[in-house]
Amino acid sequence: MNIKITGSGSYIPTETVTNLDFAQHQFLNSDGTPFSQPNEVVAEKFLEITGIQERRYVTDDLLTSDIAFIAAKKAIEDAKIDPETLDYIIFAHNFGDVKKGAIQADLLPSLASRVKHSLRIKNPKCVAYDVLFGCPGWIEGIIQAQAFIKAGMAKKCLVIGAETLSRVVDRHDRDSMIYSDGAGATILETTNEEGGILTHTTATFTYDEAYYLFFGDSFNKTHDPDVRYIKMHGRKIYEFALSQVPKAMKECLDESGISIHDVKKILIHQANEKMDEAIIERFFKLYNLPTPENIMPMSIHHLGNSSVATIPTLYDLLMKGQLENQSVNKGDIVIFASVGSGMNINAFVYRM
Amino acid sequence: MNIKITGSGSYIPTETVTNLDFAQHQFLNSDGTPFSQPNEVVAEKFLEITGIQERRYVTDDLLTSDIAFIAAKKAIEDAKIDPETLDYIIFAHNFGDVKKGAIQADLLPSLASRVKHSLRIKNPKCVAYDVLFGCPGWIEGIIQAQAFIKAGMAKKCLVIGAETLSRVVDRHDRDSMIYSDGAGATILETTNEEGGILTHTTATFTYDEAYYLFFGDSFNKTHDPDVRYIKMHGRKIYEFALSQVPKAMKECLDESGISIHDVKKILIHQANEKMDEAIIERFFKLYNLPTPENIMPMSIHHLGNSSVATIPTLYDLLMKGQLENQSVNKGDIVIFASVGSGMNINAFVYRM
Repeated sequence: MNIKITGSGSYIPTETVTNLDFAQHQFLNSDGTPFSQPNEVVAEKFLEITGIQERRYVTDDLLTSDIAFIAAKKAIEDAKIDPETLDYIIFAHNFGDVKKGAIQADLLPSLASRVKHSLRIKNPKCVAYDVLFGCPGWIEGIIQAQAFIKAGMAKKCLVIGAETLSRVVDRHDRDSMIYSDGAGATILETTNEEGGILTHTTATFTYDEAYYLFFGDSFNKTHDPDVRYIKMHGRKIYEFALSQVPKAMKECLDESGISIHDVKKILIHQANEKMDEAIIERFFKLYNLPTPENIMPMSIHHLGNSSVATIPTLYDLLMKGQLENQSVNKGDIVIFASVGSGMNINAFVYRM
Repeated sequence: MNIKITGSGSYIPTETVTNLDFAQHQFLNSDGTPFSQPNEVVAEKFLEITGIQERRYVTDDLLTSDIAFIAAKKAIEDAKIDPETLDYIIFAHNFGDVKKGAIQADLLPSLASRVKHSLRIKNPKCVAYDVLFGCPGWIEGIIQAQAFIKAGMAKKCLVIGAETLSRVVDRHDRDSMIYSDGAGATILETTNEEGGILTHTTATFTYDEAYYLFFGDSFNKTHDPDVRYIKMHGRKIYEFALSQVPKAMKECLDESGISIHDVKKILIHQANEKMDEAIIERFFKLYNLPTPENIMPMSIHHLGNSSVATIPTLYDLLMKGQLENQSVNKGDIVIFASVGSGMNINAFVYRM
């Protein structure tokens, strides 16, 4: 028995926000002092580092659970399964449903319950829960679904990653330009087909790293200190990711017994283009190899960093032939890897 | 190999709030009209239905993750394990860390990461995540931990349920008198000892039931509609729980092959005394039996309903001999059961 992804779906929000659209934002340093450079220079440097030209935001009427439902519905259709046969709905997010203009998160009921309700699934044995695990939440949902299948508790699971980061960004923080909205969903099933998940790894670093990504005050010191935003210590995250993610990926690949030469694609969390490239370079360096061309499909240039949604969205676009010069074939080896708040790192090696 | 709870800990908040302390609250109906009865009459009726005489709130300086850490530390000490050997920290809650006076939930990083950080655990292979599953979250954490153990992914797991509902209640809603704060934690391990988890069941009802418990506006119509509170359709929940929980418990017990006559204790979510009594009565009626005396230890009279924290706290008090006229012995059969937001129901049959 193998465990494979048999269907996927995603929702690309309709509002395109370019770097130029931030021209009127007053960017501040963390101490509240204004940036010394004009916004055009800031935007140029930002593009250089992150690779982000534009990002997508949901329209004002939509919530995280709404776009998750759309992606989930597509994944179910793609897998050609009866939704009533789902054993689990696992929903990874980090901020709940945040209405436009509001600052309070709505987590009651769980977003997984909302999606199940919207899907009109009647079967009470389809268990719906939310998992909070930072950006690596969707991969962790896959790993948990796999555990339920291995433990004999499930055969078919819907695993969703969705987020509307546009609702939790500080307009005065340049890092707000990184974040975006999105939703991706996949069906994980037992199958008699070849391939599927071969190995996986997960790690949580909290001793020094727990608060590298955190909820913090606006850089504008006149703002209400009880209203907080997604914040990060970018440099620390960069160094952490570079030292730990390649190791985790190598550990996972070596455990699978697959040769590095057989790796066809790496689907990595779309955090920041320069960081992702450096991670992959270090990963191949661990095998004394240069980075193969075209191994890392990217969506960050136009979609930004939508946290838990980046990898399932990237996978969906890849499967649907919507990524230029990128494709996979049956039997190909793909590594999925992520890093984010917690700080959490995870990966799995997958045969298509 | 069996899977048993080898240690427990809890945190009972220090602020005692009696029913009389609500005397100055202006209770309103859901349409905003004032209650026709004086608060003393309301309080008397409330006590009759719920059994709650007083409840506990945390002091202003504490957050959900703080009290979870205290309970977790006690559980680790009780189990006499090295915290570095933990494979998972699973933290069930529903509202995140909400500061006193603030309305915004803080979920970044996950509360499990915060607890792991406070425990000073270095081992990155100890995976920390949060699960949102309504009041049945702690039981669901146990079920998930069990799945990881069965799948060969874990041997020792810390499962926490903690909540500070005092931070999300509407002062104008009489139901605010139900809710309280608390934290309970347990260590689940593989063991060569007899007993442990025999069977479990979980169900999510969303078709009609998804929004029986929800985040809603204050009954005071002059309040900011973007500030929402825990709300419930009490009558619907009561009927739902009575029709579904006994069935789920029976299904779980019958699957274990254990006779109803061998059930020594039932640890049920402390939601409401009358409801809990009615559930247990119906459960025994399914076997054409009267409810045995003293089968259901209760803590609701003095601790109120602290959501995910009630069952692990009740278990801890029972194990430490702190519940009057209640005790368990090695080999005893105990049923754990819960119902809550989602709407979720779960249960497991356990041999001490």
